[in-house]
Amino acid sequence: MKRTVFLVSDRTGITVDTMVHTLLTQFDEEDFERVTLPFMDNPEKIHVAVQQINAAADRDGVPPLVFSSLVDADCRDALRQSRGILFDFFDAFIGPLETVLGRQSAHAMGRSHGMGNTRAYDERLEAVNFALSYDDGARLKNLDAADLILLGVSRSGKTPTCLYLALQFGVRAANYPLTQEDFLGDGLPPVLQPHRRVLFGLSIAPERLQQIRQQRRADSEYASLARCRQETHWAERLYAAHGVPFLNTTAMSIEEIAAAIMHRTGIRRRAF
Amino acid sequence: MKRTVFLVSDRTGITVDTMVHTLLTQFDEEDFERVTLPFMDNPEKIHVAVQQINAAADRDGVPPLVFSSLVDADCRDALRQSRGILFDFFDAFIGPLETVLGRQSAHAMGRSHGMGNTRAYDERLEAVNFALSYDDGARLKNLDAADLILLGVSRSGKTPTCLYLALQFGVRAANYPLTQEDFLGDGLPPVLQPHRRVLFGLSIAPERLQQIRQQRRADSEYASLARCRQETHWAERLYAAHGVPFLNTTAMSIEEIAAAIMHRTGIRRRAF
Repeated sequence: MKRTVFLVSDRTGITVDTMVHTLLTQFDEEDFERVTLPFMDNPEKIHVAVQQINAAADRDGVPPLVFSSLVDADCRDALRQSRGILFDFFDAFIGPLETVLGRQSAHAMGRSHGMGNTRAYDERLEAVNFALSYDDGARLKNLDAADLILLGVSRSGKTPTCLYLALQFGVRAANYPLTQEDFLGDGLPPVLQPHRRVLFGLSIAPERLQQIRQQRRADSEYASLARCRQETHWAERLYAAHGVPFLNTTAMSIEEIAAAIMHRTGIRRRAF
Repeated sequence: MKRTVFLVSDRTGITVDTMVHTLLTQFDEEDFERVTLPFMDNPEKIHVAVQQINAAADRDGVPPLVFSSLVDADCRDALRQSRGILFDFFDAFIGPLETVLGRQSAHAMGRSHGMGNTRAYDERLEAVNFALSYDDGARLKNLDAADLILLGVSRSGKTPTCLYLALQFGVRAANYPLTQEDFLGDGLPPVLQPHRRVLFGLSIAPERLQQIRQQRRADSEYASLARCRQETHWAERLYAAHGVPFLNTTAMSIEEIAAAIMHRTGIRRRAF
């Protein structure tokens, strides 16, 4: 019998989702059944949640785990009435933090992943539009506005990384696909030359690249291991020749690629 | 003098970033200066971090706050040597969780936002490709594969929402822009009719829509308040007439829109 895990939050549930994800990956995830309950922003809704939790306790024969990030004290009190085992994010951290800082917190809902200020929000939208306009070398003018230009061969992870950087950090990232033409010449593609300081390269193991390209265009020359080997070799040689910092993305998730780029380039995020 | 806040993690820093973001929004964020230190995955790197923390303590005249999510016990021990005030995510939760579950956790790094299994990762990439292919009504064939089709007038938030759903949840979301043509007819646009069960509408306050459109095409008819009023009115009437669930996104962040859609539709995420 699986143990039910409840994720209770007053808004999006992102905080509690991240928290549960991080904690449960340290155990065997197969053992848990998750139930997400976002927007539980008043004690009445919490009472309904408590009934669900108690029903799961009866059904499972073990008390459910209840992870919550509720800022409102009445909501937290209401949730304590359940027969689940409660792990509350604010209980764990906000009290100690108030003590250290010598002041009360705001206890206001929706601050962490809400609209916040419109400006920061617009920065993110603008960054998404930027990433879409400058995806795959679609446009090459006015690259001056780019915080970053990602280089890489087809299917090395440029597009999802740019979109993630835009959505998560408000970073304006263009991307430029390296193709055989770019490798024929000796130098950096001319269009990139004025932007050397914002270039960053992606590389990938040929075997993994082949696997990804196979899904796209099975059994094509494009997806052949020989071609994948040649392109990645050329790309890395180009990075080295022009001092373009680069990253091998083979075993990295989009989040890791993005975090590593932010870390290595020192680009400042425009939005939180 | 601002107080320095260190975010120390062994991998991407997403967990600790979310945690700090959520906690500090409950205080006055202006008071803090953040320093992010990802990929601190051995005690030697932690020693360097400790020196940075101690230097900040001297400079600020108050001990820095140190938020960490380190799974390795040696790393955690090393970090405890700093003069910062430590808030460790695993200290707070993993111990109590081990007690409840009656077993040890894996203490393995990079599990939460790493590659995990390749299949889940490919699901997310596939979802991003899907969102891009089916953005803004770009393609309308084979919509059968869509988990969701978002409807809305131009600039109501469809594209960033679809991309966020893809990256965060691996959900395949297409989007269809409602234009004046669609409002002339009586029914649902014919191309959408076979897909009623996956339709979801976005609406937005005309004033906010005008503001967004102004940034795009200043002083155009497209950005006029009259046009924004008319389009949003028509869109909501269309949703109501055809039983399409919808959301007013005016005061919502992308995260909130995505969470609300997941909650209301009950779509299951394909990736964590």
